Amino acid sequence: MAPSAVPMNGQANASDVDLTATAIEHKMEENGATNGHKATYQELDASKLTYTFTKSPQKVPAAGVISFENSSICTDHMLTATWSQKNGWATPELKPYGPFSIMPTASVLHYATECFEGLKAYRGYDGKLRLFRPDCNAQRLLMSSVRISLPSFPPGEVEKLISAFMAVDGPKWLPRERPGSFIYLRPTLIGTQSQLGVQAPAEAMMFIIASYMAEMDSPPGGMKLHTSPADMVRAWAGGFGYAKVGANYGPSLLATSEARARGFGQILWLYGEQGFCTEAGASNFFVVWKNKETGRTELVTAPLGDKIILDGVTRRSVLQLVRERCADEVEVVERQYTIDEVIEAHEEGRIVESFASGTAYFVCPISLIHHRGKDVAIPMGKKNDGGELTTKVKTWLKDIMYGREDHPWAVVVPEEQ
Amino acid sequence: MAPSAVPMNGQANASDVDLTATAIEHKMEENGATNGHKATYQELDASKLTYTFTKSPQKVPAAGVISFENSSICTDHMLTATWSQKNGWATPELKPYGPFSIMPTASVLHYATECFEGLKAYRGYDGKLRLFRPDCNAQRLLMSSVRISLPSFPPGEVEKLISAFMAVDGPKWLPRERPGSFIYLRPTLIGTQSQLGVQAPAEAMMFIIASYMAEMDSPPGGMKLHTSPADMVRAWAGGFGYAKVGANYGPSLLATSEARARGFGQILWLYGEQGFCTEAGASNFFVVWKNKETGRTELVTAPLGDKIILDGVTRRSVLQLVRERCADEVEVVERQYTIDEVIEAHEEGRIVESFASGTAYFVCPISLIHHRGKDVAIPMGKKNDGGELTTKVKTWLKDIMYGREDHPWAVVVPEEQ
Repeated sequence: MAPSAVPMNGQANASDVDLTATAIEHKMEENGATNGHKATYQELDASKLTYTFTKSPQKVPAAGVISFENSSICTDHMLTATWSQKNGWATPELKPYGPFSIMPTASVLHYATECFEGLKAYRGYDGKLRLFRPDCNAQRLLMSSVRISLPSFPPGEVEKLISAFMAVDGPKWLPRERPGSFIYLRPTLIGTQSQLGVQAPAEAMMFIIASYMAEMDSPPGGMKLHTSPADMVRAWAGGFGYAKVGANYGPSLLATSEARARGFGQILWLYGEQGFCTEAGASNFFVVWKNKETGRTELVTAPLGDKIILDGVTRRSVLQLVRERCADEVEVVERQYTIDEVIEAHEEGRIVESFASGTAYFVCPISLIHHRGKDVAIPMGKKNDGGELTTKVKTWLKDIMYGREDHPWAVVVPEEQ
Repeated sequence: MAPSAVPMNGQANASDVDLTATAIEHKMEENGATNGHKATYQELDASKLTYTFTKSPQKVPAAGVISFENSSICTDHMLTATWSQKNGWATPELKPYGPFSIMPTASVLHYATECFEGLKAYRGYDGKLRLFRPDCNAQRLLMSSVRISLPSFPPGEVEKLISAFMAVDGPKWLPRERPGSFIYLRPTLIGTQSQLGVQAPAEAMMFIIASYMAEMDSPPGGMKLHTSPADMVRAWAGGFGYAKVGANYGPSLLATSEARARGFGQILWLYGEQGFCTEAGASNFFVVWKNKETGRTELVTAPLGDKIILDGVTRRSVLQLVRERCADEVEVVERQYTIDEVIEAHEEGRIVESFASGTAYFVCPISLIHHRGKDVAIPMGKKNDGGELTTKVKTWLKDIMYGREDHPWAVVVPEEQ
């Protein structure tokens, strides 16, 4: 059976077993007025944003150039807001992009008190600049922040800050002459208190930066996955796999490097003795197969209930669109399923297609899964660029992101002309 | 049964299941000559250390003062060495303590590519300055670094750098007039590559700082532990609980804060459905009890085999001393044992004493364990400052650390007079 946290026993005291859930609930509801600093505590307030513009604007690189000397290329500005337990959130600032000054004793450098979000701004074919469901990212950033003992904030303010940042750097860095292009946004929170004691940091900083990123949704021949090694588990019940905290990433780099050296794109993370399929790299993982009993076509993906996988914004959007737009052809199934089930479906010719979804990889077709010496080949469609459903979902989402379809998920950034 | 990683199945391919172990083994053996950068790669070399002394030396605080405005008080200098995949290790530098400049895209701020060590320098009663088993810390730093995809290095060089650093700051910050005092050393590695792609960082920095720290081994009335909540697991088989990486700390702060708010000192981390006792906070955990069958006195602690707990230097030293010095009275038992066994022993009056061990907490007596609404009271000895074995072990170790006993574990730092 799957690993699980310590269960309650007969005489369990509820307040002893749900320590984390209680703490998270409490902190997510927290705000300036109720957290014990009534007099001086300031809440994060996007309307106070100050602007200091760069005096040395950078040149926008040619389309497709995404890094320089192994470093990400960021836009002219960044957005920062500092926080202290005592005074709350300082005035957010938009200022020139550049290095931070950080003490060697800062919490983030030792105890991984850090979390982030990833979302993209899209330059539409109609010339407008859009964000895709930024409310979901802001809400998840709050959840991650609280899980890693960083401050709470009203998520709507973060959404406003993202939009205000893009209103400044969007026009130049996602020019209207490049419709169909995007830039990657990275809201981040770090613990900055310069204190080596192992404790929740009393000082923190939020920052938002924007950088170019490669299109990763169509690797030639599809993405190949290598199942996770027996000696490495990415996340576990009672852990923090559902939160976008740094602690989910660093420890998985080793296996990923090794898999890449063997010619695979990402690790397919298995979980528990049965080998449940969870995530592909840092993306959600989907299989389309014919149900063994009914013969019906199913879109299968891991469930959110056990908090092992990330509640991906793209995942959520894919499931909703498939439910809304092709319920007659494909049934959406969120359940635990094992690598052995995938192999069996492969051997019985029931696999239709497979893809990974995430902000970075968007919707990326998968062509092969390597598991314990065996290769499972996945159909890649007529043009070898992804199966039918994969292609359909990509088109639907791109149409929303780039303004070909008017949809409430796409939020227009007001740009000065 | 206990959670475990995905097992090999019949037709398993060995190289597919031991990806992590292979990668770690490979990297730990790596050195400049063999890692593909023969021409330009430089190994870490302590003999090249450069010295830039501070021009604004700080005042040593009064004995017992350990922080200022919620920040750790560090010594006048720090030691840094930068690394790049291409060129290897730059010349290590001793320089004035102060903030780093770090790019917002630095790996460590997003992906928790960070690891550290904790050890102390001791001012002996004979006036000499000593480190306690620094070779163990240097070796573990290497293991942690490789596990979190940071560079390898010859651990002996780190040992030399620690000693060189203390030779400079030791005489002033651990003055001979304060025998029996210590300072805390924090060697750290962080990933500094300014690249948002999720990948092993191609640039890193090692730094060593020294700060004051409270004596934490004798809280009035002993330390009280609260067992971990059902919804939080610290570490798991196939994870990284055995490595001193930031990712083990940040995620546990939430439960610890909640436990502290309820009047407990630390969390006793349970593991698996049976509730195996693993660590107390970030310290190793020990129980002394009478064996149910034989009546013999046993010192019980969790084993290292499943890589869930940290291979503590103090833990290792405690076990070795007890085996060497009181094998007739106490049997050392390293095995999995459950909280239910502890409760049963308590109910049958078989608990003799309990303590936690680590560099920060040293050897800290435990007076109570709270589990699911029940209190397990632990005997604290005649003077209520710890049981007989706890006190004995503390005395032995202190005698070695502070030079009352000549022992190979205590390494003298050569100081200029």
